[in-house]
Formats: sequence, C-alpha cells, structure tokens
Amino acid sequence: MKLKSMKLYDWDFAPNARRVRMFLIEKDLEIERVECITPKIALNESFEARYRHYMVPMLELEDGTQIGEALAIWTYLEALHSQPALMGRTALEKATISAWERRAYDEGLIGHAEIFRNSHPNFVDRGLPGYHAKVPQISALIERGKMRVAHFHQKFNTQLANNRFVAGDTFSVADITTIVTVDFGLALNMPIPDNAPHVQRWYDEMQKRPSVRDSVPKHAPDGTPLPVAA
Amino acid sequence: MKLKSMKLYDWDFAPNARRVRMFLIEKDLEIERVECITPKIALNESFEARYRHYMVPMLELEDGTQIGEALAIWTYLEALHSQPALMGRTALEKATISAWERRAYDEGLIGHAEIFRNSHPNFVDRGLPGYHAKVPQISALIERGKMRVAHFHQKFNTQLANNRFVAGDTFSVADITTIVTVDFGLALNMPIPDNAPHVQRWYDEMQKRPSVRDSVPKHAPDGTPLPVAA
Repeated sequence: MKLKSMKLYDWDFAPNARRVRMFLIEKDLEIERVECITPKIALNESFEARYRHYMVPMLELEDGTQIGEALAIWTYLEALHSQPALMGRTALEKATISAWERRAYDEGLIGHAEIFRNSHPNFVDRGLPGYHAKVPQISALIERGKMRVAHFHQKFNTQLANNRFVAGDTFSVADITTIVTVDFGLALNMPIPDNAPHVQRWYDEMQKRPSVRDSVPKHAPDGTPLPVAA
Repeated sequence: MKLKSMKLYDWDFAPNARRVRMFLIEKDLEIERVECITPKIALNESFEARYRHYMVPMLELEDGTQIGEALAIWTYLEALHSQPALMGRTALEKATISAWERRAYDEGLIGHAEIFRNSHPNFVDRGLPGYHAKVPQISALIERGKMRVAHFHQKFNTQLANNRFVAGDTFSVADITTIVTVDFGLALNMPIPDNAPHVQRWYDEMQKRPSVRDSVPKHAPDGTPLPVAA
C-alpha cells in the first residue's frame, strides 16, 4: 500500500533510518523516500533547513507535520496500520517487545554507534548526531563500545537460546532493532562472535525475510560497498 | 487503586525508577515498592540474584514475569489502565509524545547520566548501569555531558515557548522524563539556565502536580539530603 501523503527523510547507511525501512516492508507500506546525505557524509543543507532536530529518520505528513525518532514513526504507523502487529497486541506482549527493543537500542545500537562515531575519520568533531556545534570524538569510547557490544551479544544470546524471536514467539520491532545493530557490527568488522551461537541461528533465520534483505545499506558512509551477509 | 499482584523494584534516587513512580501517581495506581539499594549505593544481592538485567526499575507480576525498562512498564500499565492517557490517544498524539519523550531521554537524561556516572566517587568502575564487570569512568564524558545538557535546555526551551506541556496541550510521559531530567540536573548542581525561561515557566507549573512532588528523590546517592525545588 502506497502512502501518498507522506515523505520519509532517510539516509541509506543510518541504522535508525533502517529501523523504519524494515518496518515499512514488514507492513507492506510504501512511502516516498528522500535521501538526505551529501557526498561528504553529512546531512544536506535543505534537510538541515527543513528539520531543526537534524537527524534521520523523519516522517513528514502532507500538512507539514514532522515526526522524528524511529520509535515515534513506528508508533504512528502501527496506530494507523495495525496489521501485522509489530509492537504487540496484549499488554504483556507490548511491554515485552518494548523492553527488548530498548535493550537492543540502549545496550546494542548505542554501543556500536559509540565505536563508529568516535573512530570514523569522516566523523571527527561529530561525536553525537543532531548537533551543529563540534562534538569531539572521545577515543576511550571505542574500547568501552567494544565492551558494550560483547555484553549485548551475550545478553541476546541468552535470550535467543529460549526464544525464536528476540521478544518471544513473534517477529517484532525488537527483531528490527537487533538486526540493524548486528548488521551495524558487520559494517564495523565486528561480526557475531563464536560464543553467541543463538544470535547466529536467529540471524540466519532473519535473512529469509524480505524486510531484512531489502533494507540493508548498500554502502558504508565513505561510499565503499558493505560486506554482504552470508 | 492498589494493584496487589505486582511489585515494583525501585531505587529512590534513580531517574529511571522515578519515571515509573510519577506515572503511577498520575494514574492513581499503587504498587508495593521494594527498595533495592545498599548503603554503598549498589543494587543489593537479592535483586541481583532475582533479575539478570540488574537495573531498576523492574515490575514483577504475580506469576514471576519480570518487566524491565521504564518505557516498557509504562506501556504495560497504559494498556491495562488507559485513563488518564499519558502516552496519547490518537496516532499523532502517540507519535508526538513518543518523539519528545525520546528526546528528553536520549538527549537530556543520558547527558546528565554521563556527568553523574563519570564523576561521582561512588561510581568509580561503574560507568554504565547493568554491568557486573568494571566499566571505567571516562572523564571526557563530563565535559561532553555538559554540552549535551546545554543542548537539551535550548531544545526544550524552544519547544516550551509555544507549548504548555512538552508534547503539546496535554500532560504526558514526555513531561515525566523531562521533569526527572531537570531534577537530576538540580541534584548535580546544574539548574535550569537563565537562557531557558520557558523551561523554568513549565517547571514551576509542574511543581503543582502531586506526581512531581511526591516522587522526588529525598536523598542523593551518598545519603545527603537533596536540594528541594523552589
């Protein structure tokens, strides 16, 4: 179903933008995409002028209303297009999915982002997203990020030992954020470690989903092709 | 209304735990609270043994089901006790509240937490929550945290110039996370700056709400009484 009255401001590589792209494919929804990145790997000026929070993804409605933050965009689309439910049906399902999605984000995605933002040569003075001011890189966050990534793999390995999907028996937004995080790790040359076989089993199963395959970033921030998952 | 079948694992000072306490008061719900902190300002052993994610808040149901993460606990309780709605009624309300709640959390609360965790003498080697391993403090995060806090104040000042509440015309969880964040700042001797008068106007109005007054932490992590808001 094509949603003609909306535009999605996107950046192919950005993990948070991919969270929305995967969600749309799972819902069989299409929204016109506007790629906002320059060849210098910064958000372009027209996006900067349009959206004061200066981060992708951003969903713009026909009347100009702007919805930022991947979680908020999901929330909006889930309320309007409830099937298939990706954020839970019962109170307990909703809560379980929310908790695991938060863990994937706060403990996984942010850990990877700390490594990326604080080490990549194109991100000097861009240690955090959404700033016009310079935010210096902090090299100590690279080591701490590696600790966080290892912790994330172990926590999710334990969970996936007893669950088909991240939040239980059903595919959900918790799987989306976890896939995005694991693939962010591949792009950073941090694959799933040997001591996380249940994450690997789940990851392999996820590759069968069109939403995973068709949303994957095609290029690293510097334009080099990304490794393709097995 | 007393919810007899649940227990809330809590820590008076913890900002994320207070997010749930304020929510409960706004909903007029009561849940038995279990304070989990030791005199050494660590989560106690019985909590550690009970809950593998090792962070407060955690809501435990009668059958032993554990719901962690403040956002997930809200989601659960909002689904079961929908009035007053604190997470929005329409799709757009839900999304707007979610986006501003995320900004308060990611850009405000986390910035404050970076200062606190990386400077407080009781948190040496506890730079992140939820770890058993040592996570060294990173002093560069104190300065970066101050930049984040200033950015947060300016962003929310702009929003509150034109909105009575953080996410618009209605009190919501976005206000809860923002109040918790501003009060975290007070405890860190980082009050609302003079160049954020709209945040101050909103903050003063929020003080009339019982949920704000009755949820405020009474002591800093080291046991000293906290400054009381004007």
